[in-house]
Amino acid sequence: MIILGVDPGSRITGFGVVRVHNGKIEHINHGVILMDADDAFPLRMKELGSAFREVMEKYKPQQVVIEKIFLGKNADSAFKLGHARGVIMYEAGLGGAEVQEYATRSVKKGVTGNGGASKEDVQAILKVMLSLKTISRIDASDALAMACYHAFEMKKKAIMQRAVSL
Amino acid sequence: MIILGVDPGSRITGFGVVRVHNGKIEHINHGVILMDADDAFPLRMKELGSAFREVMEKYKPQQVVIEKIFLGKNADSAFKLGHARGVIMYEAGLGGAEVQEYATRSVKKGVTGNGGASKEDVQAILKVMLSLKTISRIDASDALAMACYHAFEMKKKAIMQRAVSL
Repeated sequence: MIILGVDPGSRITGFGVVRVHNGKIEHINHGVILMDADDAFPLRMKELGSAFREVMEKYKPQQVVIEKIFLGKNADSAFKLGHARGVIMYEAGLGGAEVQEYATRSVKKGVTGNGGASKEDVQAILKVMLSLKTISRIDASDALAMACYHAFEMKKKAIMQRAVSL
Repeated sequence: MIILGVDPGSRITGFGVVRVHNGKIEHINHGVILMDADDAFPLRMKELGSAFREVMEKYKPQQVVIEKIFLGKNADSAFKLGHARGVIMYEAGLGGAEVQEYATRSVKKGVTGNGGASKEDVQAILKVMLSLKTISRIDASDALAMACYHAFEMKKKAIMQRAVSL
């Protein structure tokens, strides 16, 4: 099973891809989609969607995971972010993937054991977990963490279903 | 020139299509894209994008017009709306159209002469302007008004450019 984690943004969108095989999580790739800051917002959405389609076509994930958002004080940036998330959800659906959303806190807690962990903490653990020397793109580490967390959750669900059916 | 006005929403998205020919605005069609309220939000974004792609492919507009949003108190609905707008912008761009945004107030003022006009006022004037007996879908009339307003604006710009180049 291929899981693609996405950290959407209207300028930089991070992504991380893992494969779950025989209960083990294996790192496939991670990276970022950069939009041209000089381009008008609608054009950036086209750039994002087209680039994300390439990611979908390359890795063919069965599951796409996006951060669940709690609206803070900055409604303006949440509104902009909404556009990027819509594009990701649409292309993920077109590519045949199921879309899952998790709160950052749950992901951090699941990956590091601490819901308030720093980005650096998350990266350090991801490196060990996925046997990576380095995570070249800082923006992609949240995406990678989401993909891993989703792998845990699916495993947990599978174990619980097995227990129930005993 | 074909202009497509869009009134995006995460449950109902209205659209209106006009053709500008020899300085006259001609009504082509209007309608709504309905999403299944029982479906999860990400799935609705897929439904919206796929249906909107069909609209783009059917009418092949050179210009797509969307309402410009000013964030009010309800950040939550603005956030949801952002998703729908992102999908529209992306597919509009993929279809080769230029995307334009106008504030509702400007559109109402341009079409009826009054920025505070009611939906009914706008509809009444649209019917006369486009020689329509009825606008079957109430949700599409704002979209149709945007398309018409954009036609006015483009005409105005063309006249001004001609005046400048005299």
